[in-house]
Amino acid sequence: MGTTIATASAGRISRRAHALRSSEIRDLLHLTRRPDVISLAGGLPDPSCFPTDELAEAAHRAITDRSVLALQYGPTEGDPALRERIADRHQHATGRPTHPDQVLVTTGSQQGLDLLARVLGDPGDTVAVEDPGYLGALQAFKAAGLRLLPIHLDDGGLRVDALAALLTGPTPDRPAFVYTVPTFQNPTGVTLAPDRRTELAALADEHDLLVVEDTPYADLRFSGPALLPVASATDRVITLGTTSKTLAPGLRVGWMIGPRWLIAATTRAKQAVDLHTSSLSQAVVADLLADPAWFDRQVATVAERYGQRAATLEAALADRLGHRIALTRPSGGMFCWARIPGLDARSLLPAAVDEGTAFVPGDAFAVEADLRDRLRLSFAAADEARLVEAVARLTRALDRTHPA
Amino acid sequence: MGTTIATASAGRISRRAHALRSSEIRDLLHLTRRPDVISLAGGLPDPSCFPTDELAEAAHRAITDRSVLALQYGPTEGDPALRERIADRHQHATGRPTHPDQVLVTTGSQQGLDLLARVLGDPGDTVAVEDPGYLGALQAFKAAGLRLLPIHLDDGGLRVDALAALLTGPTPDRPAFVYTVPTFQNPTGVTLAPDRRTELAALADEHDLLVVEDTPYADLRFSGPALLPVASATDRVITLGTTSKTLAPGLRVGWMIGPRWLIAATTRAKQAVDLHTSSLSQAVVADLLADPAWFDRQVATVAERYGQRAATLEAALADRLGHRIALTRPSGGMFCWARIPGLDARSLLPAAVDEGTAFVPGDAFAVEADLRDRLRLSFAAADEARLVEAVARLTRALDRTHPA
Repeated sequence: MGTTIATASAGRISRRAHALRSSEIRDLLHLTRRPDVISLAGGLPDPSCFPTDELAEAAHRAITDRSVLALQYGPTEGDPALRERIADRHQHATGRPTHPDQVLVTTGSQQGLDLLARVLGDPGDTVAVEDPGYLGALQAFKAAGLRLLPIHLDDGGLRVDALAALLTGPTPDRPAFVYTVPTFQNPTGVTLAPDRRTELAALADEHDLLVVEDTPYADLRFSGPALLPVASATDRVITLGTTSKTLAPGLRVGWMIGPRWLIAATTRAKQAVDLHTSSLSQAVVADLLADPAWFDRQVATVAERYGQRAATLEAALADRLGHRIALTRPSGGMFCWARIPGLDARSLLPAAVDEGTAFVPGDAFAVEADLRDRLRLSFAAADEARLVEAVARLTRALDRTHPA
Repeated sequence: MGTTIATASAGRISRRAHALRSSEIRDLLHLTRRPDVISLAGGLPDPSCFPTDELAEAAHRAITDRSVLALQYGPTEGDPALRERIADRHQHATGRPTHPDQVLVTTGSQQGLDLLARVLGDPGDTVAVEDPGYLGALQAFKAAGLRLLPIHLDDGGLRVDALAALLTGPTPDRPAFVYTVPTFQNPTGVTLAPDRRTELAALADEHDLLVVEDTPYADLRFSGPALLPVASATDRVITLGTTSKTLAPGLRVGWMIGPRWLIAATTRAKQAVDLHTSSLSQAVVADLLADPAWFDRQVATVAERYGQRAATLEAALADRLGHRIALTRPSGGMFCWARIPGLDARSLLPAAVDEGTAFVPGDAFAVEADLRDRLRLSFAAADEARLVEAVARLTRALDRTHPA
């Protein structure tokens, strides 16, 4: 999939489509699919964590025993049983009453981003985002014609004070919403500190601001105590969730939880977009969520695996690169964020691929921040022996391109 | 799901989302779900035609034997094996060489409509549509900010001469594309005549116009010879297809086939919309399409069933309503279109639901045509005994509200 369009046809493409570029990560994935490359670039979960037996049985059972539910057209809002189970889990996580009517099942949480951008924003409106931030969100917001207001992060996550300044400064902006991945953020792995969660909720209430709290990695905690979501402290939160990191991304089952007026408006938008999410995928997820204890064990298995890998990757980087590298040390999720002072990560990448490994250069995730000396490394993508080998290869590439 | 939004929250919804109304058909479906109603209103295929055993086995096999393919993130373009099988079928149907790179797998063909509207049109651009036309397409185009240019239909399908007049008249319009369901159209059941197919292709070539040929029902022919698709006569066609009417709609697997520049641009747009279509659903469909002879038999079974039902419905309507009703007599698909001179179909509907049946009033599908005396009846939705009973109920409702 190239980014060039034959001149003869370019005139047929809309202005808004011309503004879309292919995701750099996805283009990179094409390059790193060589079987000899140990790629730490992708955001792919470890397929050995997929509960294949349970998924195969659930799919067979759903089609055989509940064929109309699993195969017929269904309501745009989603399968009622699935919405109820999602609402239950949310109520448990936030301590707030959550009705199934507040849940919309989406085709992955990516669809939630596209729908929210269109339902809450018109072209030219603004959205406050983390800088660096999740690329798929930035793409969806830009595709909808929204302007990005970047808010920086530090080790405590989103700089809520910077967001407050934006809302109250001499030329205050009123974004359509704030987008944040508060727990094990992509790409940095950082987690929003408890006091900032409270501050963010208070800020939302004070300014009647909507916060979109995206939680793809929140369940994958491998150290430290769980934190309360921002949604536990205010009703002005729209929660996005997904089974992509806990069960399997290929199901494309995500959800949005929010106020009823928003769910109603977003459901109307989804109707014109894809009618509804795969009934088969929904039936499989509803079947597996019917046993919450099993699901909790599944999540714990994935988190434990990633915790072991994170420790391995961190130790290998410390061993090989020592003081040359500064790392975030995430307590969960899939990503580690590294800084190598003096690095030009883009020039390192071809050498790394040449040596047989890959990562994502930090500035791929930047809105306006200068991140040329950062790189995102996924510890979920390879087993421990391969992680160690990938670090050896990365070190060789670094020694070649950036001699100490 | 209501269409009113609490005033306190209305200000949060974007202008474009405010412009979206819920589909009247879907709101109606909520009303007609009463178990005592024999509804001829929906566009739902008959679930007894779903090949449940084959689907259940294919799902189990895909997850067990090809778990990464069926469960991991996949390419936005779709599963390569599925794209190849779709390309093969298209090449066979059109007689034109079709490369898998010309195929984008979509989350139902509804997603193809949303993507095309955004990739080919900017807000304020126009699109030529059939009047009456498929409601989901009209919704998707309006949601993307496109203005509809209605073209009337007659028994030979789209009035291609009216389209020609639009392109060449004193104030010619240049639509982003023309949208048509040429075979067993929704809602009218009419089929574009062979000479008009040739004329439409010639018009597209002469004016460098893109034609979107939506083919959800084309395989479901139960009488008469198959006609060549418009795509067999020009490269300026984008074909939309789906497994919703031949296998099962709950899979949400559709596709778009077109020139490479368009597939590349639409793939970029899809990336921000839902990353890719359910890998599980794609793996199931790819598995079943691997045996084209089986798939052809499955399609023939569905078409034969619908043919019997169409004959039953037509006979019952003739028997009960005789000269009061004029019918299209489709050679395939799911819908029959009726005209009852002097009827106000909207006032008939509550009486029909009261008697225990339902239909869709014709003007639900209108762009600007006056269709208050038409109704769309699905013959796919009920078995033959229930179709006969539905007509008896409809007749009673008509006798009550519109005495002869």
